[in-house]
Amino acid sequence: MGSYDPSRDHGLDFTSHVPSFADGTDSPRAYLERCIDTIEQKDPEVRAFVATNVDAARAAADASSNRWRARGPLSSIDGMPIGIKDLLETQDMPTEYGSPAYRGNFPRRDNAAVWALREAGAVILGKTVTAELGGSHPGPTTNPFDATRTPGGSSSGSAAAVAAGMVPAAIGTQVGGSIIRPAGYCGNVALKPSQGAINRGERQATSMSTHGVHANSIDDMWHVAIEIANRAGGDRGFPGLTGPEVTPSALEPKRIAVLETEGFSELDEVTAQTFARMVEQIASQGVDVVTRRDHPLVETMEQSVREARRFGGRITAWENHWAQRILIEQFPDKTSERLKRVVRTAVEMTPDDYRDVLRERDIAQATHRSLAGFVDAMITLSCPGPAHVWLGDEPGKPLASRPTGDAVFNMPSSVLFAPAVTVPLLAVGGLPVGVQFMGQVNEDAKMASIARWAMDNLSPITS
Amino acid sequence: MGSYDPSRDHGLDFTSHVPSFADGTDSPRAYLERCIDTIEQKDPEVRAFVATNVDAARAAADASSNRWRARGPLSSIDGMPIGIKDLLETQDMPTEYGSPAYRGNFPRRDNAAVWALREAGAVILGKTVTAELGGSHPGPTTNPFDATRTPGGSSSGSAAAVAAGMVPAAIGTQVGGSIIRPAGYCGNVALKPSQGAINRGERQATSMSTHGVHANSIDDMWHVAIEIANRAGGDRGFPGLTGPEVTPSALEPKRIAVLETEGFSELDEVTAQTFARMVEQIASQGVDVVTRRDHPLVETMEQSVREARRFGGRITAWENHWAQRILIEQFPDKTSERLKRVVRTAVEMTPDDYRDVLRERDIAQATHRSLAGFVDAMITLSCPGPAHVWLGDEPGKPLASRPTGDAVFNMPSSVLFAPAVTVPLLAVGGLPVGVQFMGQVNEDAKMASIARWAMDNLSPITS
Repeated sequence: MGSYDPSRDHGLDFTSHVPSFADGTDSPRAYLERCIDTIEQKDPEVRAFVATNVDAARAAADASSNRWRARGPLSSIDGMPIGIKDLLETQDMPTEYGSPAYRGNFPRRDNAAVWALREAGAVILGKTVTAELGGSHPGPTTNPFDATRTPGGSSSGSAAAVAAGMVPAAIGTQVGGSIIRPAGYCGNVALKPSQGAINRGERQATSMSTHGVHANSIDDMWHVAIEIANRAGGDRGFPGLTGPEVTPSALEPKRIAVLETEGFSELDEVTAQTFARMVEQIASQGVDVVTRRDHPLVETMEQSVREARRFGGRITAWENHWAQRILIEQFPDKTSERLKRVVRTAVEMTPDDYRDVLRERDIAQATHRSLAGFVDAMITLSCPGPAHVWLGDEPGKPLASRPTGDAVFNMPSSVLFAPAVTVPLLAVGGLPVGVQFMGQVNEDAKMASIARWAMDNLSPITS
Repeated sequence: MGSYDPSRDHGLDFTSHVPSFADGTDSPRAYLERCIDTIEQKDPEVRAFVATNVDAARAAADASSNRWRARGPLSSIDGMPIGIKDLLETQDMPTEYGSPAYRGNFPRRDNAAVWALREAGAVILGKTVTAELGGSHPGPTTNPFDATRTPGGSSSGSAAAVAAGMVPAAIGTQVGGSIIRPAGYCGNVALKPSQGAINRGERQATSMSTHGVHANSIDDMWHVAIEIANRAGGDRGFPGLTGPEVTPSALEPKRIAVLETEGFSELDEVTAQTFARMVEQIASQGVDVVTRRDHPLVETMEQSVREARRFGGRITAWENHWAQRILIEQFPDKTSERLKRVVRTAVEMTPDDYRDVLRERDIAQATHRSLAGFVDAMITLSCPGPAHVWLGDEPGKPLASRPTGDAVFNMPSSVLFAPAVTVPLLAVGGLPVGVQFMGQVNEDAKMASIARWAMDNLSPITS
C-alpha cells in the first residue's frame, strides 16, 4: 500500500509562485533552496539524481531573482529549477547515459533544449537517473510513494524528482514509453510531444524519440515545452511545437475514443474498474465516448496498434543497434544483459525486416490520421496499473524482462508520432495511475487544453 | 587549359576486373598495390587523402584474394579499395572532419556504411579530404586535371582520388552540393541518393544530408551503393535504397525536363553551348526534351527551386549551428572565418524563420512530385562550368565566398530529397563538366538506368 492520495499530493508547482517573485515576498533563490532541502531530505531514498551542480544553480537563481526584482524576467520559467534526464548533454555536468561504459563522460556542451532552458532563465539543478541508454535496464531510483516499487523508466529520475517535490519540472525522453509511463506511475503531469516538436540537439538517434516534460501542473508543463521550442525549435526537418506562451485554455472534448490496446486484457481488475469509472465520469460530463465496440473506425485503430510493442520495439532495436553493438564490443563488462539481448535481436534483422516494421508503423499512422475530425482525442491509461515491486534482479534467476514496466499503453502514441499528455487522476492501492490523452500529430496545444479541462473538471478516483 | 579528355580519361574501374580475380590472372591484393602505387605517385600533388591504413588494407585485400580464389566472394565489391570521406567514423583511422578542432579525434568505431562495406569485403584504404565540417572552407586537395583548380567540395578528396585513379570508388556526402559538384568538376560518375536511402549511422546532423558514391563506372557506383544498403539499410525511419544487386539495365527516357535554375543565367557561354549541344544530342535520340519555355509545369518547377540556394542554405545553417556554435566557442582559433560567418547567420534566425524556409522546401517537393509521370527525369549541369582556379585565400582581401564552387545546380536535388546521378560527358577547356539526372524520391535505380543509357549511347562533347 503506497502513500499516494491524488486529492492531496499535488506536488510542487512553479507558476503559482510567480506573483510572489514579482512582489518580492519570495524569490527564485529561496525557491531553489527549498528544492535543495527536499533533495537532501528525500534523495537518499528516492535516488532521482545522478549529479547536481548546486553552485551553478544558486548563481543562476540569484541572477533570476535580480531579474524578477527588476521586473524583467526572461520568460514564464525564469528561475524554475529543472532536472535534466542524463541522456541530454549539459555543459557543466557529466552525461553518463545511465551506463557504466560512459562513467565520467563530460562533453562540456549543452543539448539544444538545455541551451534553450538556460536562455529562458531556468535553473539547471541536476541530472536525473535514466535507465541504461534510455532502455529498460533500470537505475537505482525508487518510487517516491513506495520505495519498494519502480518509478517506471527510462525517465526514472525525472518522474521521481518531480513526484517527490524536489523540482517542479524535469526533462524526460520517450522512444517507447519512457516519459508517459514513469509519469503515470509517479503521479506527474507530463507531455510526450509530437515527433520532432522539441529539438533533440545532438540526440537524433531514433526515428521516434522525443524530449518531453514532467511537471506537477499543466501550466508548468506547457511553459517549459513552449519556452524551449520558442528558442530551439523542433528537430531537423520538423516545424516544431507551436502554441501560446501561456497554457492554452481548457477545452472540453466533444468526442473521445477509448484506446484499449492489448493492455486491457492484461490489466488487474481494480485498475480496470477504476479507469472505467473515470470514463463514466467523463461521459457524465457530456463527452461522447466511443470504444471499439461502438464504431468500426475505433476497432480499426485498435487493430493497427495491436502489435505496436513488437513492431515499435523492433524499429527501435534496429535503429539503436549500430551504436550499441560497438559499445558492447568495447565494453562487454559495462553493458547489461538486457541491452545485449536487444542488440542480439537487432543484429538478426535485415534491412527488409526493418522495412516491414516501418510499414506497420506507416499503416498505424495512416489509420490514426483517419480519426482526425472524428474524435478530439484518444484516452487510455498511462501505465498498466500501479507501479510493481522491483528490488533488482535475483541472482540465479532469469532477468525480469520489463523491470520499469510494460509499454503496452505507451507504444501507440510513440509509433503514431502523436502528442500525449498524462494527468494524475487515479490512485490504486495508494499508488498513482495516470490517464493519458493522445491527439493528432502537432495537436500538442490541443492536448494540453484537454488535459487542463480534465484537471479542472474531473474528480480524482481512488480505489 | 586542363588535361582532361572524356573520350580517353575513363579512370580506374573495378567491376571489369572481377573476371580476372575469379580466373586467377589478377587479385584484389595486386589491384590494391596498383592503387597504392598511384597514390604514392600522385597524392603529393593531388592531396586527396588525409590518412591511409595500408597495412590493414593489405590484410583485407589478402583475405579477399583468398575468397575469390576459393570462388566465394562476399559481394560484387569484395576486394574493392575504397576511400572514405573524413566525415565518417572509421574504426582504424582518425576522423577529423576537415577541422583542426578535431585533430587526432579517433572514436575507434565504424560508421554504419563503413561497417557494411567491410561486411561486403571492400578494402577501406584511407580517409579522404573534406572541406571543414562538410561546409565550404576548403582542404588542400587539388583538381587532378589542373592542380591550380579546385576539385570542388566538400567531398574534395573522394572526387579527386577517384579521378586520379587512386581508388575505383569513394564515399562522399552531400547536404547542398558536396557529392555531385566535385564529381562534376573531376569527371566522376556519382550517386547522390534519395534522402535517407543510405544509412548515415551516427551522422544524423541535418535533414537533407546523404551518403553517396563517387566512382568511374555506373557498375561500380551502383554496386557500392546497393551493397551498403543491403546490409545497413537506410536512415532511421526511411525504407532505404532498393534495387537489383547488379546495375539496373539501360533505360532510355521517354521525356526529360531541362532544369535550368538560376545557374543558366550565370554560366559562361562555352559551357552553356556545350550543354545545349548535349541536350540536342539527347533529343536527336528520340527523347522528348521539355524546358520552361515549353510547358508551364516545368516553369513552375523552376520557380519553386529558384531560391533553393538561399532557403536550402538557411535550413542547413540552422540545423548545423547547434553543434557548430559550441565548437566555435571552444575552439575560436581552430574554426574558419567562413564557418563563423555561416553560424552568425544561423544564430540570428528564429524557429519561425526556420519554419518559413522549411515551407519553401515543402512547396518545392510538392511541385516536384507533380512531375511524376510527366517526365522520367530532370537534366541539368552538375557544376557551373569547369572548375575555377583556387590557390587559397589572399591575405588582406575578403574571403572568397565559394572556393569549392557554387551549389546552384546542386541545391535542387538536395532540397527535393531527389536521387541524382552525374555522368562525365562534357569537357570545357580540358576540364570535366558533369551532366546530372534527377528523379523522383526513391527512383535511385531508375536514375542509374538512365545514366547507364547516357554513358552507353551519348558521345562526349569537348569544347
